[in-house]
Amino acid sequence: MVGEKIEQAAKILQEKNIDLWLTFARETSSNPDPVLDLILGAHCTWPSAIILFASGEKIAIVGSLDMQNIRDHAPYQVIGYRDSIRDELLGILHKHDPKTIAVNYSTNDVMADGLTHGMYLMLTEYLAATPYIDRLCSSEAIIAALRGRKSTGEIERIRAAIKETLQIFDLVAEKVRCGMSEKEVASLMVEAMQARGLAPAWDPDHCPAVFTGPDTAGAHAGPTDRPIQPGHIMNIDFGVRKDGYVSDLQRTFYFLRPDEVQAPEAVQHGFNVIRDAIQMAAAALKPGVEGWMIDQVARDYIVSQGYEEYPHALGHQVGRSAHDGSALLCPRWERYKNLPFLPVEAGQVYTLEPRLNVKGAGIATIEEIVVVHESGCKFLSEPQKELITIKSA
Amino acid sequence: MVGEKIEQAAKILQEKNIDLWLTFARETSSNPDPVLDLILGAHCTWPSAIILFASGEKIAIVGSLDMQNIRDHAPYQVIGYRDSIRDELLGILHKHDPKTIAVNYSTNDVMADGLTHGMYLMLTEYLAATPYIDRLCSSEAIIAALRGRKSTGEIERIRAAIKETLQIFDLVAEKVRCGMSEKEVASLMVEAMQARGLAPAWDPDHCPAVFTGPDTAGAHAGPTDRPIQPGHIMNIDFGVRKDGYVSDLQRTFYFLRPDEVQAPEAVQHGFNVIRDAIQMAAAALKPGVEGWMIDQVARDYIVSQGYEEYPHALGHQVGRSAHDGSALLCPRWERYKNLPFLPVEAGQVYTLEPRLNVKGAGIATIEEIVVVHESGCKFLSEPQKELITIKSA
Repeated sequence: MVGEKIEQAAKILQEKNIDLWLTFARETSSNPDPVLDLILGAHCTWPSAIILFASGEKIAIVGSLDMQNIRDHAPYQVIGYRDSIRDELLGILHKHDPKTIAVNYSTNDVMADGLTHGMYLMLTEYLAATPYIDRLCSSEAIIAALRGRKSTGEIERIRAAIKETLQIFDLVAEKVRCGMSEKEVASLMVEAMQARGLAPAWDPDHCPAVFTGPDTAGAHAGPTDRPIQPGHIMNIDFGVRKDGYVSDLQRTFYFLRPDEVQAPEAVQHGFNVIRDAIQMAAAALKPGVEGWMIDQVARDYIVSQGYEEYPHALGHQVGRSAHDGSALLCPRWERYKNLPFLPVEAGQVYTLEPRLNVKGAGIATIEEIVVVHESGCKFLSEPQKELITIKSA
Repeated sequence: MVGEKIEQAAKILQEKNIDLWLTFARETSSNPDPVLDLILGAHCTWPSAIILFASGEKIAIVGSLDMQNIRDHAPYQVIGYRDSIRDELLGILHKHDPKTIAVNYSTNDVMADGLTHGMYLMLTEYLAATPYIDRLCSSEAIIAALRGRKSTGEIERIRAAIKETLQIFDLVAEKVRCGMSEKEVASLMVEAMQARGLAPAWDPDHCPAVFTGPDTAGAHAGPTDRPIQPGHIMNIDFGVRKDGYVSDLQRTFYFLRPDEVQAPEAVQHGFNVIRDAIQMAAAALKPGVEGWMIDQVARDYIVSQGYEEYPHALGHQVGRSAHDGSALLCPRWERYKNLPFLPVEAGQVYTLEPRLNVKGAGIATIEEIVVVHESGCKFLSEPQKELITIKSA
């Protein structure tokens, strides 16, 4: 995939009118830059400059002991150094004299913000006496486009990860029973995942995240010893990594009380509101709209039905990571910086994951994955239409 | 270990005369800060401020959905926010009015340089209208001390990882034969590692690294299909992770030609020079000396014996990572910044790993691990005293 992404990058540099894109990094096994997965596929030890040009030329300046490893992983002209990267880096800049230099930092987008502040200080010290110090800009727009616009091959890999995940959900739906703890449910999923030779899509401490009943710990917490009880809503947030690409999906379950044959009205209604909010958001999702508008479709509908608004984004991009960066379907809160205002583009893959609290029962939340086409979006996951209802033993 | 390290941090803040240490990070599963392993042991999603005070107080300001996960992992007072971290962060600063604020960036030390430049811009924008903007400094000295000064428990874990690694080397020494490829030798090691339930200490692409014969790819490259031939020197660089701590060791082998009963004089001499250079460096390694002085002991000896100097550091610290940061036994090259000038301290754990080229045969290199005590250093690895000599089949 690295070769494909490097070719795509040259076209994006032309489109964005950037002459040279510099990714400056060191000891990336301890302090990785998320973009190197896309354009290098290997680790660097000493300060390293990964340079792509709008012309299609590509140069990697790395410590001498890293040269062979870089050559083994990606099609760069590899230049080595021993004492300092300074002279080789300045030599390349002087030779090409770029008018604009995009650098790997971003206030807005964590996936475009791999440059550490220490490395920034080092770079600006090298450039201090040159004209290039005034030609630096953020590479966030390049990275947003490169990461966001998935190739057919990338979408097929995400689809394959989704398929495995939905099969694991089905398997767990058959086995889960009242009395099991959140941890036991999580173990069922992890076993099924490992039996398929797959890895979790995010931190294994909370992949899967399992929440049963009212007043749970909330998203991003790990499963606990809390047992499932009749009358509980349970939700699971889970994804797998397959061939370098991930899924990220949620499903909602209800555990019947002994005297119930279906979920109570309040639970069913909460589920329906989430299910319908996702369809409404999907119907509005197309190239050119800004992410906050899509978030607002779902958020407004949920609030109109008498629920509190969810304390997070409606959806994020998915790809090589569960949080694949850049344009976000989120409210205009300060913490999201400019991400709600980036226009949606064809080829992007988003989650849709609103939630609401059904008082006394638990959290209703579904997470689906869609891909944006020129004319709208299509579901990559088969949407959950029905509450998964489990009888008491 | 997190609780132990947080307690140690308060003492170091007092010693360094720093009132408040701020680690500012976001989406750490995509863009980790290496110090959070030591002081948090969990991931953050939104912009998060991990704050330690010289008084021993500890506060984590995190996105509301992360609160429970942080509480589950480390003993902080956890403060949540939804829209923006700004107000909570400024509130804490105004309440405590710290005279010095150490922040997680460093030009010198990658392990203290987790703050991205985008996050730095965000932080300085928040602080722009406050007196705190002028009180910021690098937390590199805190992190160097905290990471470097190992507790007894940490040293025992490193010792355990070393023991496993040396056993795996012994096993491979029994099985390796002429004609095997570098990749086959690597597979032997990986199988032995996995059978013990251990993970590699660094990038599995080149852990182990295996090099046989003259003109190999050089450090940091993965094993190839090149077969071992009689007359080859082979060296292996390998480490494992056990209970969160790692080893990093190298051993040198020689493959006899059919008519040889021992290694040729040139090979034996190269091995002896490396072996003796390590002992000389270890004899000089004690608290208070600067790293470059130790490097120079080994480097000068090797050059005095007619070999080219090695193109890297003599040794680095080992702990939670194979390259555990800060004080380094390295030459005064620009790429190493101030690291060669940091004084050695008791409790630090270093590798010693010089190399030299035996022309026409391969690279002789041994890597040992030592711990620094008040009066000198002690080997944690049983040093390789004899060239491992393998008969031709």
